[in-house]
Amino acid sequence: MNGHSLPAEVRAQLLGACERIVGPAGVLSDPDELRVYDCDALTFFHRQSPDLVVLPTTTAQVSDLLQLCYAHRVPFLPRGAGTGLSGGATPHAGGVMIVLTRMTRILDLDLPNRMATVQAGCVNLWLTKAVEPYGLFYAPDPASQTACTIGGNVAENAGGPHCLKYGVTTNHVLGATVVLPDGEVVRLGGKVADLPGYDLLGVFTGSEGTLGICTEVTVRLMPQPEAVKTILAVFRAVEDASNAVSGVIARGIIPVAMELLDRETLKAVEANVKAGYPLDAGAVLLIEVDGPRAQIVAEAVGVEAVCRDQGCLDVRVAQTEEERVLLWKGRKEAAGSFGRIAHRYYLQDAVVPRTKLAHVVREIEAIATRHGIRIANVAHAGDGNVHPMICVDPSIPDCEERAIKAGSEVMRCCIDAGGTVTGEHGIGNEKREYLRYMYGPADLEVMERIRSVLDPLGLCNPGKIFPDGNASGAGVAPATPAAVRGHR
Amino acid sequence: MNGHSLPAEVRAQLLGACERIVGPAGVLSDPDELRVYDCDALTFFHRQSPDLVVLPTTTAQVSDLLQLCYAHRVPFLPRGAGTGLSGGATPHAGGVMIVLTRMTRILDLDLPNRMATVQAGCVNLWLTKAVEPYGLFYAPDPASQTACTIGGNVAENAGGPHCLKYGVTTNHVLGATVVLPDGEVVRLGGKVADLPGYDLLGVFTGSEGTLGICTEVTVRLMPQPEAVKTILAVFRAVEDASNAVSGVIARGIIPVAMELLDRETLKAVEANVKAGYPLDAGAVLLIEVDGPRAQIVAEAVGVEAVCRDQGCLDVRVAQTEEERVLLWKGRKEAAGSFGRIAHRYYLQDAVVPRTKLAHVVREIEAIATRHGIRIANVAHAGDGNVHPMICVDPSIPDCEERAIKAGSEVMRCCIDAGGTVTGEHGIGNEKREYLRYMYGPADLEVMERIRSVLDPLGLCNPGKIFPDGNASGAGVAPATPAAVRGHR
Repeated sequence: MNGHSLPAEVRAQLLGACERIVGPAGVLSDPDELRVYDCDALTFFHRQSPDLVVLPTTTAQVSDLLQLCYAHRVPFLPRGAGTGLSGGATPHAGGVMIVLTRMTRILDLDLPNRMATVQAGCVNLWLTKAVEPYGLFYAPDPASQTACTIGGNVAENAGGPHCLKYGVTTNHVLGATVVLPDGEVVRLGGKVADLPGYDLLGVFTGSEGTLGICTEVTVRLMPQPEAVKTILAVFRAVEDASNAVSGVIARGIIPVAMELLDRETLKAVEANVKAGYPLDAGAVLLIEVDGPRAQIVAEAVGVEAVCRDQGCLDVRVAQTEEERVLLWKGRKEAAGSFGRIAHRYYLQDAVVPRTKLAHVVREIEAIATRHGIRIANVAHAGDGNVHPMICVDPSIPDCEERAIKAGSEVMRCCIDAGGTVTGEHGIGNEKREYLRYMYGPADLEVMERIRSVLDPLGLCNPGKIFPDGNASGAGVAPATPAAVRGHR
Repeated sequence: MNGHSLPAEVRAQLLGACERIVGPAGVLSDPDELRVYDCDALTFFHRQSPDLVVLPTTTAQVSDLLQLCYAHRVPFLPRGAGTGLSGGATPHAGGVMIVLTRMTRILDLDLPNRMATVQAGCVNLWLTKAVEPYGLFYAPDPASQTACTIGGNVAENAGGPHCLKYGVTTNHVLGATVVLPDGEVVRLGGKVADLPGYDLLGVFTGSEGTLGICTEVTVRLMPQPEAVKTILAVFRAVEDASNAVSGVIARGIIPVAMELLDRETLKAVEANVKAGYPLDAGAVLLIEVDGPRAQIVAEAVGVEAVCRDQGCLDVRVAQTEEERVLLWKGRKEAAGSFGRIAHRYYLQDAVVPRTKLAHVVREIEAIATRHGIRIANVAHAGDGNVHPMICVDPSIPDCEERAIKAGSEVMRCCIDAGGTVTGEHGIGNEKREYLRYMYGPADLEVMERIRSVLDPLGLCNPGKIFPDGNASGAGVAPATPAAVRGHR
């Protein structure tokens, strides 16, 4: 499978032109090299190679590349580290993939104003490491933070365990340099909180690479808390743990993180990480509070009281930094650990109102039973962000069909509970059809109009977000884009 | 001045049709009644009556009204309480004004999830009063909160003293029901933090009524803090107070509020409110910290230490709730108090990076001296949001011209310092030309494209935000709007 979608002569022309823009070392065209880029971390669906991979190092190069693609009417898409889980950084049908992993520089640390400006390919954790000596950190911490890039985080509006208290990526991005689909470079946002004009930074954040390519990002940095307490609460059943999550918030405590791991997940994690989680529990909550020392002592007491009210079996507070790090290692490597309990797996992502968590988890169990498969649950429970992990076991007949059907029912159940079909991984290729369940035609049309005005030719990451028949590719772009820009 | 811009027969037709939609009691057409709506709180510029004022009570009525205006190609604009300061809720050249002050209901209080859904005309403070018994509050608190509406807050992305710690309106709005310019009703956002698809709620928030009319808003509610401490720090000079503001943040303390009042402002406030502010100081800071009791005791000690380091003359902590309320009354009524020291005044609004505050205040003083006028300063200093109050004294020759020139220089100075031309009051009529100083043509064009796709006929609050020659009215709308929507 070489995945080439372009006629050979167009591809050869583009190859030459791309090499002139970024140098020969910045272009990959060999099928074996391209295969590396044929999926993201969602390996279950949609493998497709790009025609070319280009690795620019400057905003000007990205602008030149997009002008080139636009002139040739060739689709293109951006990619960071490829750790996404919805196929957002996978080509729909070939085209030019623009990979930002060589744009890794931290351009500016503005410590007095607690802001940093980085190139889009800067790895999430590198930024936190760079500002650690100054008592600061970058708050959004996806489980993939050792690999994922800030630019990718902006594209997907990434969350993470610590986003319960601190907010997701969009709450931390202050500005971005964006190359629009036609190659124009614009600066969205800036170093102040409330800019005049339309807040296009907000639309761009989470637009999954469909409105242009972000090359530089200015983010807010947070002061490190005075102290941290990490609590492991052990429950007989997922439902008790879910109720404890609502109970903690209802008590007026907002922990930094409240992560739920169910029995199956605990098995997987312990087989891989040996984090010291119990294997006989129905579920655990990993709860972290941070802030001034006196405050978190009081909060930890409150958290423990709520957990005991929900009949928890045990509450353990990490006594050393090593113990704390190990507990987090277990949680952060949960997705990677599922290979220990399943041949293949299909990781889902949805959000439900916090108070519906117990109900939804019960429903997910019923769905698993109905389809005769296993579904493990790991969740950013404080946000109501569930990650049902559907195990695909080849010893079960029709295992893939069952997984897909169960996945679809899980999504419907979350929508019916007042939730949404993605918490942090985006719509990408995978969830396009679900948008119809969530939005009416008028809502979808407004989004399409926005997309079509910024990308009238439908070349920028086509086939993502919108259901088929909506603005998902060149075919649905307005016939006369010149009219859209007629007032230029 | 009747301000009618519509031909008499069109106006008569519209009047009848509007009365059929909302009932005769919901339409105002008498010139004396319309005069009430010919300006917002920025009385200095741009008085203009609408042709008709309509007061709907439901989303369906708003939708019918916009369909009517669209069919007749008549401009329209929304208005809340009219407390804005940039002419955003003042007609550009007549048309139909849709006033939401009869849509005041609190539709839903979802206490476990800490959210409320209100009609757009609900007064800001009413919501906080309604949830007070449950230990909650609505955080954004504009100085006008006793009058201004949640819908108006959304239109202007309003801030307030307590937004330093809690964020501005856009950080608290979770969802909105919006009637698009052609009458379509869409629901933006919802009850979860990170929705799939484009974040149009973010664009809508702060779009100053130019992208449609918001009729219902879902907002986040916050738990009341355990305790509050309010500190008045007295300084010899504005510069010392400004440096203290940066110093507090640099120490890792984020107060709820850090408000600066200079000597002229103190004079005005004391003449009006008698809040107990000193009259011999160069400036005061009103600093409030909230949170768990132990934490704020420590923070208050830290704040005092920073202020002393900056040579402050006195630090006073409010000892009773009455004292605290009185100090805040002084601050919140500052704008209304300026009448005590100036015949008329022109209140400005800009944001600068916090570390540039002392520099900008020095520059403002120099501008005042150069033009032979007085400029008082009151600021949400923690956010770098300055409100220079330019006094217009008719005993000085050419006082208005001087005020306008000085205002323009103040804006330029704030932009040059890396700031922006509005912190919370918007661009409206008043500041359209400044956008050119802040954004390049490509940036402005992206915003215009967004506007033209949602409002291809340019009927929704025309003449706002964009500089003349940009998408500020019907003349610049695409010639063939049908092409824009061709993929319907």
